[in-house]
Amino acid sequence: MKNAKKTLNTAELSVAAIRSTVIDVINKANSGHPGMALDAAPALYALFHDHLVADPAHPQWGNRDRFVLSSGHASSLLYTMLHVSGYDVSMDDLKNFRQLGSKTPGHPEIGVTPGVDATSGPLGQGIAQAVGMAIAEKAIAAQYPEGEKLMSHYTYCLCGDGCLEEGISQEAISLAGHLRLNKLILIYDENGATLDGPTSDSLTENQKLRFLASEWNVIDVKDGNSVEAVSKAIGKAKKSQDYPTVIIIHTKIGFGSKLEGSHKTHGSPLGAEDGAYAKSRYGYEEPDFTIPEAVYEDFRNSFLARGTAAYEAYEETTKAYAEAHPQEWRVFTDAMALKGKGYLPKPRDFAESKAEATRTSGGKFISDLHASMPFAFGGSADVAGSTKTNVKGEPIFSFDNPQSRDVHWGIREFAMAACQNGILLHGGLRTYVACFCVFADYMKAAIRMAALEEIPAVYLFTHDSLAVGEDGPTHQPIEQLAMLRSIPNLEVFRPADAKESEAALRYAFSKTKGPTAIILTRQDVPVLPLTDESKVEDGAYLLYVPAKKAVGQIIATGSEVALALDAAALLEKKGLPLEVVSMPSWERFEALDEAKKAKILHLPYDKRVSLEMLSTFGWAKYAGKQIGVDTFGASGKDKMVLEHFGFTAIQIAGQVSVLLEGK
Amino acid sequence: MKNAKKTLNTAELSVAAIRSTVIDVINKANSGHPGMALDAAPALYALFHDHLVADPAHPQWGNRDRFVLSSGHASSLLYTMLHVSGYDVSMDDLKNFRQLGSKTPGHPEIGVTPGVDATSGPLGQGIAQAVGMAIAEKAIAAQYPEGEKLMSHYTYCLCGDGCLEEGISQEAISLAGHLRLNKLILIYDENGATLDGPTSDSLTENQKLRFLASEWNVIDVKDGNSVEAVSKAIGKAKKSQDYPTVIIIHTKIGFGSKLEGSHKTHGSPLGAEDGAYAKSRYGYEEPDFTIPEAVYEDFRNSFLARGTAAYEAYEETTKAYAEAHPQEWRVFTDAMALKGKGYLPKPRDFAESKAEATRTSGGKFISDLHASMPFAFGGSADVAGSTKTNVKGEPIFSFDNPQSRDVHWGIREFAMAACQNGILLHGGLRTYVACFCVFADYMKAAIRMAALEEIPAVYLFTHDSLAVGEDGPTHQPIEQLAMLRSIPNLEVFRPADAKESEAALRYAFSKTKGPTAIILTRQDVPVLPLTDESKVEDGAYLLYVPAKKAVGQIIATGSEVALALDAAALLEKKGLPLEVVSMPSWERFEALDEAKKAKILHLPYDKRVSLEMLSTFGWAKYAGKQIGVDTFGASGKDKMVLEHFGFTAIQIAGQVSVLLEGK
Repeated sequence: MKNAKKTLNTAELSVAAIRSTVIDVINKANSGHPGMALDAAPALYALFHDHLVADPAHPQWGNRDRFVLSSGHASSLLYTMLHVSGYDVSMDDLKNFRQLGSKTPGHPEIGVTPGVDATSGPLGQGIAQAVGMAIAEKAIAAQYPEGEKLMSHYTYCLCGDGCLEEGISQEAISLAGHLRLNKLILIYDENGATLDGPTSDSLTENQKLRFLASEWNVIDVKDGNSVEAVSKAIGKAKKSQDYPTVIIIHTKIGFGSKLEGSHKTHGSPLGAEDGAYAKSRYGYEEPDFTIPEAVYEDFRNSFLARGTAAYEAYEETTKAYAEAHPQEWRVFTDAMALKGKGYLPKPRDFAESKAEATRTSGGKFISDLHASMPFAFGGSADVAGSTKTNVKGEPIFSFDNPQSRDVHWGIREFAMAACQNGILLHGGLRTYVACFCVFADYMKAAIRMAALEEIPAVYLFTHDSLAVGEDGPTHQPIEQLAMLRSIPNLEVFRPADAKESEAALRYAFSKTKGPTAIILTRQDVPVLPLTDESKVEDGAYLLYVPAKKAVGQIIATGSEVALALDAAALLEKKGLPLEVVSMPSWERFEALDEAKKAKILHLPYDKRVSLEMLSTFGWAKYAGKQIGVDTFGASGKDKMVLEHFGFTAIQIAGQVSVLLEGK
Repeated sequence: MKNAKKTLNTAELSVAAIRSTVIDVINKANSGHPGMALDAAPALYALFHDHLVADPAHPQWGNRDRFVLSSGHASSLLYTMLHVSGYDVSMDDLKNFRQLGSKTPGHPEIGVTPGVDATSGPLGQGIAQAVGMAIAEKAIAAQYPEGEKLMSHYTYCLCGDGCLEEGISQEAISLAGHLRLNKLILIYDENGATLDGPTSDSLTENQKLRFLASEWNVIDVKDGNSVEAVSKAIGKAKKSQDYPTVIIIHTKIGFGSKLEGSHKTHGSPLGAEDGAYAKSRYGYEEPDFTIPEAVYEDFRNSFLARGTAAYEAYEETTKAYAEAHPQEWRVFTDAMALKGKGYLPKPRDFAESKAEATRTSGGKFISDLHASMPFAFGGSADVAGSTKTNVKGEPIFSFDNPQSRDVHWGIREFAMAACQNGILLHGGLRTYVACFCVFADYMKAAIRMAALEEIPAVYLFTHDSLAVGEDGPTHQPIEQLAMLRSIPNLEVFRPADAKESEAALRYAFSKTKGPTAIILTRQDVPVLPLTDESKVEDGAYLLYVPAKKAVGQIIATGSEVALALDAAALLEKKGLPLEVVSMPSWERFEALDEAKKAKILHLPYDKRVSLEMLSTFGWAKYAGKQIGVDTFGASGKDKMVLEHFGFTAIQIAGQVSVLLEGK
């Protein structure tokens, strides 16, 4: 194309300004991904200019449309868009792209940039987070009288080929179609290239057919460079009453660059020369980092005017709503703030409790929570019968039962966890998800994302040890607890019995910040007279102190606390008095002050023995000696397996004796 | 259906015997999953009886057809099938189903049961392993002159809804379609139920359309109970010259049970009464655990006769082949045994080496390996340009270039890792896969599987620390190394420089058992005069010992070894002489005898400081003091980020001084 001098209309000028600024932003940082940021600019312009409802003055407004940039590497485009749209992202912020402490980090991060609705970058997870947001919108609107006055918005997501190659996208797409999330609109930028080469090097599937298979509406926009065509498609998608919509826009990666169409524009700055070339192709003649007033004006007249009016109308509507439904309004505002404390069930009376699996304790709590907290929402990945998280009498959350709060996620652990992230980012529901502990592996990347986003996700991981028994090593967790404990910001609890389980769950649903994983047994464990609900938040406490001065300490968690007590009793009879520490949570223990910590783990390092029917990995921090399992498990009756690996009271007593006394 | 007394024909009798034995097997164990095991029996009978080519007398025969039971919970069916087919699985073995130490564990495990080609159970991964096997078949056949004489077989896989709900299935299906693995045949048992309820509770997508979208041939078998119909479909699928085939068989879960069609048959034994009812429906009148001679005869006349003949023919063919192509035959047999030692590249000369990123060192090794080892095979998840694993001049492995050994896996980390497992289980190729270290999270479950299967998978994880820089916290590994180190059987190396990197890679490709992860830098690191290639296999060694008696030790890995040396030099000048230990691999260190370990970490626990620009999780095992990063990272220029988190030599010297001397 020759650079014919031409006058740009408003939309053309705005798109050219956005693209040119993206080039400047990446060139200045000498880091970033221009490819998709350039080619998807018209689509994002169409979305922001013509459709998206949000108010930059109130970026946290609960009923705004949500937008997730699943291809987080196109962050320069999003930041530029937020800048021209009136968010608190200045030209200086853009100039600080990817600099330490800036408002414009390498990939979008919530809490850092106003207008960013989700942390994204790890591919595929953005789509699942958007699905979670659309679930939240549908569920909340259905839960309140005249609920659509409180909650009625669209969820948009932009993704590329990379997100669709990731398996989690299929889980999320399949689920979104199944749930008929008609207010979810995915814009898929089919730009022909991934980082290593043309998309066709590794991907040849028919995406249109794939979405149709998952019951989505599909709109094909042949010229993704046409603002008008994309805008029209979005308008059509918004009218869907039944299924989610994908808008496939066909573009050329790195539009405008000399390398347009080549994967080489994916991850490298264009540089000054090619940048100037591209700008001239856009017909853009402003100096670097210069956007004409007409562009800002364009957004003030559209996006900003629409968003401000919508926000004000919502304020009026909800003022009236609050008067008409004061109780519901209070619940709604608490729910949007993710407040849990006022909605916890009454503590159970454990006086008469018999032995029960802690998965059962967890299940009882979840059922009680559904009664006390009208915005409790969750479910499991097709193992509700085993994780005990099915809520009696509650139908399955679906298109026909959107008011229900029991979700059947299907065998989609990763999407389940990532959707939970989206729901919590959205606000209005307190969530939990449940599956077998060993399959935390499938969810790792989404758990990490929750930790990064510091949202109060709750994971119930049951079947937590070798005591899984017959299902064997593929289903017996060994190193999963170490994996979870190693994630920053995640608090992990492995409660000893029903009492500690309830305390851990109460704590998890009281938090408003940061995720919690609760690790529960498959097998029955006694309700121990010595366990103390009030100490669980401390992470560790002295459970048993013998009459005679102790020569050592067994530090145990979960089902091994009872085992530790039994072993200690055997050894005390033999003249070896030992203390037993229950340590349900390392992270909570670490939050204590040093003096308090030292009072609990008060014996010398070499006199402390950890006991956990899992990998010893990490335990050296607390105990000089460790008892655990550092190999994979085995299939067999649980009691046989435990004996085989040395986890009877007599075997443990023997081991402890050898470790502490050398005999 | 009424129990009309009728005479069963041979096939009917065999299927009834298999189903009835499955019922007995699960009832006796009082544990197991009858649902699919019962309904898929006719399909598996059709496969074994009419098509599968394998020889029970030589279960490891390299050119046998492969069969992966992706829905591993139907293990009772597979074991019963192996029993009647003539494998070394006795009736007593079946009676010991799910008992400790038996040949018939809860889920199939390689190395435990002859005839089991893959460990399976964690859903979705079986499909990907089968895809890996089909890739291996295609690649090997193309790599040798007259290669189809050495390698020419089918790969079969049986899966249910659960496997298809898992995202990894989409990655694997998409890839298999893209690569046109025409000798891959997937039997999808659409039985209408998952563990928690009818499949339609969580899954309503059109699977047929989904496979078509991924370019598969689809054959729909309406009556999955018809041996003839399934057999015919398999016959048709075997003729495909272009694309893989899925055969969708429609069945009723728990066929024969009073609860037929209900998810309640999924995970619970039928019990004596319902078992008897089902057997009478099958028209089977033998006592428990009794199979008439006619059934064994049926398999001897079909499966066994076919397999024995095929094995003998292959022996003859390859005898001639070995004479005609002695060199290729040697390579082929070494490759099938996964021997690496004789095929490693010449050691590089590091005398003149400048600083280089260890990802570059890794990439150089991979390129050299492709030249020296004709069966080296691997690639990355769309980040070959960044992981440096692209092999110059080598085309991409594809339908049109099956002889090529450079694989573009696409942005499908999980399937990439699981396919690698399948390739190695198959034998004939030595593989590696590469991606960014932080995305090891996406692969965790498949890495665990490799560790469980004890296969010599190799992972190159690059971009291994905060030094990733601008891409920010979503892309900066923190806890990933702890996650990897905690996996039993996995050996993890984080080499200090080019020399240690090469040594680690040489070691990884020399192993024939157990996976290895190599953790590499994005940024340049100096080639250190003090590092010692010969010590890398020891896991740790004294790198620097000061002239004066050391008051402490810094134990570092990877890029922090150079940093430790710099910090130690600063402190030595200030009168604080310190030793520096390079510790590339914890697992290798643990393999040393205690005396050797004590010689390396010879200073008191409290005088050892670990230094790693990653989570300190786990380091307490080796060092009383730890320096690391226990929060998420930040986006910014790498040098700025490192300074922000305290990783300059001056900062480290200060910290070490405070930790050891309190000042």
